[in-house]
Amino acid sequence: MQQRYQFCPYCGGKLYVERKAERPRLTCQSCGRILYENPIVGVAAVVRNAEGKILLGKRSETASYAGLWCIPCGYVEYDEEVRQAVCREFYEETGLEIVVKKVFAVLSNFHNPLVHTVGIWFESEIVSGCLEAGDDLSEVGYFALHEVPPLAFPTDQIVLDMLKSEQEKIQPLIK
Amino acid sequence: MQQRYQFCPYCGGKLYVERKAERPRLTCQSCGRILYENPIVGVAAVVRNAEGKILLGKRSETASYAGLWCIPCGYVEYDEEVRQAVCREFYEETGLEIVVKKVFAVLSNFHNPLVHTVGIWFESEIVSGCLEAGDDLSEVGYFALHEVPPLAFPTDQIVLDMLKSEQEKIQPLIK
Repeated sequence: MQQRYQFCPYCGGKLYVERKAERPRLTCQSCGRILYENPIVGVAAVVRNAEGKILLGKRSETASYAGLWCIPCGYVEYDEEVRQAVCREFYEETGLEIVVKKVFAVLSNFHNPLVHTVGIWFESEIVSGCLEAGDDLSEVGYFALHEVPPLAFPTDQIVLDMLKSEQEKIQPLIK
Repeated sequence: MQQRYQFCPYCGGKLYVERKAERPRLTCQSCGRILYENPIVGVAAVVRNAEGKILLGKRSETASYAGLWCIPCGYVEYDEEVRQAVCREFYEETGLEIVVKKVFAVLSNFHNPLVHTVGIWFESEIVSGCLEAGDDLSEVGYFALHEVPPLAFPTDQIVLDMLKSEQEKIQPLIK
């Protein structure tokens, strides 16, 4: 694993890697503290229209993975409740207020070695607002599950495949 | 929010709090980097026996919340897939190997101001092993949902209430 941190955030001492608690851990030469590293939490909202199309956003030129598309998403802030986080992110990126209905998927994301995350995709419904791209997105639109544009994140494809498989169970004769 | 970190882990510079990206953020006086703070991911396994009793563990004298009980749980390591993490933690704490069936609940945990987490409770089933308390736990046992011992974490109580409500839906006449 790439060593992201060089200094102890508690005392400013130099960090080195030592095997502790069954793994190599960043340990401080000065105060001896271990700096545990953990994935952080990403949240995304799965919103579909009456035709079953899903709302996707194109990542803007200033965002990571620029030009690729994703299910609107973001990180949970430290003091933020996880459902509030997905509603905030979705509003910032699409202009739409949503209510969270249920957890659709939980998957680990390893595509970026500098920020491993655990992603939580919530099935959600729009309650108000006007659809307009904002924040990390430059464009937003609804897409049929089998006709999506190039995606930024491999786990979004897994979620789309899960949605397709669910749709096929509900509508086995319509293909 | 209590300031947990004083020094920049990238360059060792002093951190100060500045309002950036709509929140007060830890910012480095030397290199200017923002140290984003996010909740980390906790995972727990909901395992029930044929009578519907749930497996709980008593937290050992050396663990936080010593003497109180919890649904067996732990943190996801940086390089670890989220379902592997819950299986590893459950095995370390109970001696039992499990398979994850589905996500039962996702809830934010704010009980510890120094470590906010997003908890993910997975419904799981035992595949092998011998029940024996280990790691952070000193005792393990099955409890009826309405007869649980004092709990360490408020969100475990929410999960138990959700399980009770589900059970009542399935068995409305047995009370």
